[in-house]
Amino acid sequence: MAYLPFTPTYKTLMGPGPSNIDPRVLESMSRPVIGHLDPDFVGLMDDIKSLMRYAFQTENDLTFPVSAPGSAGMETCFVNLVEPGDKVIICQNGVFGGRMKENVERCGATAIMVMDDWGKAVDLNKLETALKDNSDAKIVAFVHAETSTGVQSDAASIAKLAQAHDCLTIMDCVTSLGGTPVLLDEWGIDAAYSGSQKCLSCPPGLSPVSFSARAIETIGNRKTKVQSWFLDLSLVMNYWNEGAARSYHHTAPVNAMYALHESLAILKDEGLEQSWARHRTQHEALRDGLLKLGFSFLVDEASRLPQLNAVILPESIKDREGDIRKTLLNEHNLEVGSGLGALAGKIWRIGVMGHGASAKNIDICLSALNKVLA
Amino acid sequence: MAYLPFTPTYKTLMGPGPSNIDPRVLESMSRPVIGHLDPDFVGLMDDIKSLMRYAFQTENDLTFPVSAPGSAGMETCFVNLVEPGDKVIICQNGVFGGRMKENVERCGATAIMVMDDWGKAVDLNKLETALKDNSDAKIVAFVHAETSTGVQSDAASIAKLAQAHDCLTIMDCVTSLGGTPVLLDEWGIDAAYSGSQKCLSCPPGLSPVSFSARAIETIGNRKTKVQSWFLDLSLVMNYWNEGAARSYHHTAPVNAMYALHESLAILKDEGLEQSWARHRTQHEALRDGLLKLGFSFLVDEASRLPQLNAVILPESIKDREGDIRKTLLNEHNLEVGSGLGALAGKIWRIGVMGHGASAKNIDICLSALNKVLA
Repeated sequence: MAYLPFTPTYKTLMGPGPSNIDPRVLESMSRPVIGHLDPDFVGLMDDIKSLMRYAFQTENDLTFPVSAPGSAGMETCFVNLVEPGDKVIICQNGVFGGRMKENVERCGATAIMVMDDWGKAVDLNKLETALKDNSDAKIVAFVHAETSTGVQSDAASIAKLAQAHDCLTIMDCVTSLGGTPVLLDEWGIDAAYSGSQKCLSCPPGLSPVSFSARAIETIGNRKTKVQSWFLDLSLVMNYWNEGAARSYHHTAPVNAMYALHESLAILKDEGLEQSWARHRTQHEALRDGLLKLGFSFLVDEASRLPQLNAVILPESIKDREGDIRKTLLNEHNLEVGSGLGALAGKIWRIGVMGHGASAKNIDICLSALNKVLA
Repeated sequence: MAYLPFTPTYKTLMGPGPSNIDPRVLESMSRPVIGHLDPDFVGLMDDIKSLMRYAFQTENDLTFPVSAPGSAGMETCFVNLVEPGDKVIICQNGVFGGRMKENVERCGATAIMVMDDWGKAVDLNKLETALKDNSDAKIVAFVHAETSTGVQSDAASIAKLAQAHDCLTIMDCVTSLGGTPVLLDEWGIDAAYSGSQKCLSCPPGLSPVSFSARAIETIGNRKTKVQSWFLDLSLVMNYWNEGAARSYHHTAPVNAMYALHESLAILKDEGLEQSWARHRTQHEALRDGLLKLGFSFLVDEASRLPQLNAVILPESIKDREGDIRKTLLNEHNLEVGSGLGALAGKIWRIGVMGHGASAKNIDICLSALNKVLA
């Protein structure tokens, strides 16, 4: 049995991620590998950290990419900040809040759930009630941009409430980073995690994270060891922190770091404000076209994410939406995302992310939909 | 502040990994990204699993790459097979056995340590005594090829002893896979993990793992949830297993998988036996040159790894070995590895791995050493 090289067809990626990648980023990965402790690589690590601080709008020292996908970034935040017996308030309004609950419970802690409907932003009143009812809560965790529903919650207000009740905050900004404002320091977020493959338009596999001084102090005061050796920040810090020994912990994914560096440099060159504005503009073009085709939006305009469009399918196509997505993929090389959980078969998730937030991609998408739905 | 593209100099990588990469593999990573649930990607996943079964010499269904480096592959084995209160016998003869102990203890289990000197193979008599003294032990864990010392242990005999005492086996074959025989089914290993960046000559970032039917049964009978959501095989299986729902768990590092596929295909094309023989031949050429230069080997010939040469430094250079490694790196673009722990400053670790197990690399290494030590 002969193994031929895998030669993927170029596809227009307008699902929930991965997004299409700038050729500069793709090219960077084929550069020669060097050692994970090579001084040149250590210099690259410092550049990546500095660029990540810009993307997160933070001065946090401990800002680096976890050497694994976003789910591992999430787990890094929880296993380091949560100890057995702790109480964590989780605002859930989609799939990823549920995953936070799994993380908290696997740390031997208690999750207090503040539930909102899928497609609605986190209700601040419900959160405040939960904080009052649980004065011993240690952390408030929430999803800034729910990839399963396309809703954005008011991170600044959530963090303010958490601070007023002396809680740390953990924020999932997997889908927001680079696409809509993520202002860690201004908001006072203590731990945040993202993914490389959404609005940063880097291949999947890395999870940018950032921790405040207060979070690091909390980690320093732990009574128990972090349950994961691989994700234990007290060990990882010795590899990633400037001024630290830069000693071996694990072998970093060197070529993936080349790509992250390149994609962050592209973001810096464009400027965050310009990137946010571009996502907004392309979202509006897509929205206008989708409304004409009979789609409507799951999420109210006020909390709608430009980069993740959760659209309710026209009645006429609900019973064949899977086949239509197949046709889009096979005949138009266009990927759009299906609904998750209770929204499966009812919505599509159309991503307008990073390098893919372009007039070209919007044209391809609307043109293909016009043909397929005609 | 302008960020220029990072343009790493090509270096001859003869440390403990990463190793030099075939241009075919480097090129593969710059192919267009496609979705992690795209049918074309699912087909690639199946090809990768099939090629990995060849590399591991196993028929195990559950054979796939963990989406993170070797340390996460190690953790995958331990957190899935170990439950709180379990007893695990660990054979330690270097750095990585110590990391196993950390893993076991962080699972709330007890580690029974069977200690051997660094540079010595696991002593089967000591292991047998430990098995007799701990009839309630559930697992025997050991490092097949210790990257910190260059020693290979007798995996077949260790596994046989473990089976005779009704224990599962966990084997670290990070440095052996592809370089020296790894015969999971013949030896009866229950869980094995490796790394992409050693003798497979793929960029770092992925950890090939394989689990026997007995291991899967043990996982199925767990009384407690796996403490890591990201590494929980009961969830990961639904994404990786043929015939399974192929449902979303995490976003796989798509382009890194292109590279793993290409590097495994290269191994298959060459043939395992031929690859093992090439490592042996190039090791012998290096050994002859090093002996002439006054180096000696830490490890007895019988248990010496061809792909990781732990060499004792000539007395004359011990006090300036760090400077010499810097000169090799800066003036000859040659990376060799330092000693770890108690062996720091006493040995070097010279890797002859994968694509780098070539006459060209051996020539570059010996020629540079001849110049620098002259």
